[in-house]
Amino acid sequence: MNASNDRKHILLIVQKFGGTSVADLEKIQHVARKVKHEWDNNHQVIVVVSAMAGVTNQLIEQASKANPLYDNQEYDAIVATGEQVTAGLLALILQKMNMPARSFMGWQIPMLTDDNHKHAKILDIDKAKFMASIKAHDARAIAICAGFQGVTNNGRISTLGRGGSDTSAVALAAAIGADRCDIYTDVDGVYTTDPNIVSKARKIDKISYDEMLEMASLGAKVLQTRSVELARYYNVKLRVLSSFEQEVTENSGTQIIQEVLQMEERSVTGITCSQDETKITILGVDNIVGAARIFTLLSDKKIIVDMIVQVESRQQGLGNLTFTIKSDDSEKVQALLKQHQEALEFEQIVSQDGLIKVSIVGSGMRTHTGVAAILFNTLKEKNVPIHAVSTSEIKVSVLIDAEYMELVMRNLHHAYGLDE
Amino acid sequence: MNASNDRKHILLIVQKFGGTSVADLEKIQHVARKVKHEWDNNHQVIVVVSAMAGVTNQLIEQASKANPLYDNQEYDAIVATGEQVTAGLLALILQKMNMPARSFMGWQIPMLTDDNHKHAKILDIDKAKFMASIKAHDARAIAICAGFQGVTNNGRISTLGRGGSDTSAVALAAAIGADRCDIYTDVDGVYTTDPNIVSKARKIDKISYDEMLEMASLGAKVLQTRSVELARYYNVKLRVLSSFEQEVTENSGTQIIQEVLQMEERSVTGITCSQDETKITILGVDNIVGAARIFTLLSDKKIIVDMIVQVESRQQGLGNLTFTIKSDDSEKVQALLKQHQEALEFEQIVSQDGLIKVSIVGSGMRTHTGVAAILFNTLKEKNVPIHAVSTSEIKVSVLIDAEYMELVMRNLHHAYGLDE
Repeated sequence: MNASNDRKHILLIVQKFGGTSVADLEKIQHVARKVKHEWDNNHQVIVVVSAMAGVTNQLIEQASKANPLYDNQEYDAIVATGEQVTAGLLALILQKMNMPARSFMGWQIPMLTDDNHKHAKILDIDKAKFMASIKAHDARAIAICAGFQGVTNNGRISTLGRGGSDTSAVALAAAIGADRCDIYTDVDGVYTTDPNIVSKARKIDKISYDEMLEMASLGAKVLQTRSVELARYYNVKLRVLSSFEQEVTENSGTQIIQEVLQMEERSVTGITCSQDETKITILGVDNIVGAARIFTLLSDKKIIVDMIVQVESRQQGLGNLTFTIKSDDSEKVQALLKQHQEALEFEQIVSQDGLIKVSIVGSGMRTHTGVAAILFNTLKEKNVPIHAVSTSEIKVSVLIDAEYMELVMRNLHHAYGLDE
Repeated sequence: MNASNDRKHILLIVQKFGGTSVADLEKIQHVARKVKHEWDNNHQVIVVVSAMAGVTNQLIEQASKANPLYDNQEYDAIVATGEQVTAGLLALILQKMNMPARSFMGWQIPMLTDDNHKHAKILDIDKAKFMASIKAHDARAIAICAGFQGVTNNGRISTLGRGGSDTSAVALAAAIGADRCDIYTDVDGVYTTDPNIVSKARKIDKISYDEMLEMASLGAKVLQTRSVELARYYNVKLRVLSSFEQEVTENSGTQIIQEVLQMEERSVTGITCSQDETKITILGVDNIVGAARIFTLLSDKKIIVDMIVQVESRQQGLGNLTFTIKSDDSEKVQALLKQHQEALEFEQIVSQDGLIKVSIVGSGMRTHTGVAAILFNTLKEKNVPIHAVSTSEIKVSVLIDAEYMELVMRNLHHAYGLDE
């Protein structure tokens, strides 16, 4: 009787811990206590871990030094080791605390992805196989999964892009039908803007998938964009929590849910900033075929191009093509373009580093008017030049010089009434 | 016509590069030139790499700190990452030099092992599958294999024990029927003794598998013991070479072969020293069942016990049991024994660190007399206390205090006529 009563309360919980939460052995021990808390309550726990803070960057630096035009398949093999180490260490610490734990790499789960290396997409997780592997170790085993990584149909290691461990966690939660997916990180939730930049930033208790999606894709580093997309699609009950908070209560963190109903809806929910943006301008390209050739080349090499700012016409069918990329792709992109200069038939490349993209986000924009006007007026008042603008249904983004970051974000936070 | 002539000269070559040979990107670039040299001669090259020098120790330290009584399965998952990174980096550098290279982890080859984690033995390498994977990448692809690691039947990562990359290389050479297996290391061959300790040490041009086996197992760190055993069994043409020598000639390095025929055979071929030995003495154990229980426990935990020095009888059927282990197992062994003190029924543990095992090795011992006498006389003259002695057909080992290392080795090297 009791057994069947107990079974009712067994939840299937996915917990994800980011790089700063597992930065050293002491922090991993702290993470282990969070796992133990759920396990002691008789829940079945599946944990997803990132690499220890800084490790992935070191590995990327090594790969870039070995070969600036690195092959993404080998890049993946190298950087995937970071999560492998954390998974093993957390398993060892849980075992020391007398919990049956076992590490699982992407290929061991297996988490099948496409072969778009460095930015692979998850195709399938074999729930039955994975759950059987866990049970084979121990009836109450805790699976510690290396985040960020998967395996292709060819048996090659793939990775899901920076911050991919969030996506690993949500995909696992969706595949196994988890009751909860708790993303533990170094902040206690999603904020109206970056508290390191704007001191008046406030924690948001509930945010819709749509808003979170814009916030995430625009630089709020709390969650990887794709993890939010995936959570929305599969309706995964997602929560962002602090690893460092002792007690988790109903009001802890930020819940990401279908729709937020508020008495008085704000026009703007949050302000984000995406740093390390580089603007590339290619001078003297063919107006007709230039862009197609260049973006095909970049796409083949899996370079993510963000804003495409302008294609100006000049004399003789030649124009200038401008777009933004992440600054850490800058060297690779420029080397690649110069290598193909003859075939692409352009005159010159000009690059500008040190840019940022500031965005305002809110479902309220759908119904409120004058939202963009506040943005442009604020920039005008502070004499901030705008390099580019892009918009969607629930956000407006501007590309500006990095030096204006604090000034602009602080003033926008105030202008949209987010300070209170 | 030419094509068929050319084909005759295509060799299948395994090259293995140790930790100091791949210690940094500059050294890996140098390694890449060694690979290119063989590849340019139209040979098919399979490369085996170790972790970058120091990396494996760091990983082991992390695992030990996470859990001193670590589970070997998770230990393997953690430490196997070192070789994974090197394999990826070398592949990237070869690709930069326009060679088609592709990394292979143990589970990708696959190199099937038993599930004796941390000290796994290779069961099988699927030659057809491996060669097909290489060809699938490119007709002339260079496979860069992560040494030291394999995969169990359960799909878990295994490792082959310290220095296991040599064994990986020889096993691959045997499995694919390689024409040569070249082990590149930081010395230019096998020496009569450690040149860092005895300045008069000389390079040995040819050594038999049997002698090399004793040398390797007794602490000559040039080759892992099992790799030599495996090479002897499969008659793999093995050569030890320096990574740092520019030109490889016929006289480079040391060849390990079936039998060495010499006009005047020396009684002793080399002198080795195994450091970091710890002597454990367990006081007051049952003379009948004590040793069996203790060694069963250590064997279950995969602890390698070397010399078992004595089982002294005392009163009431109790005795003292003494054996040696590697010092880095010392903490684990003592914790383990204390944990089981009640079941094992002993009184006390005494450990002595800071010991070394010095050995003289030579096939000539089979026919020469008085070889051991020279050893004991040399130790007596220098007043060196002997803690234990063990012998085999072609070697004699003594356990002594580490402080006598240089003194003893220098004098033995002279006494056995190895200085000339």
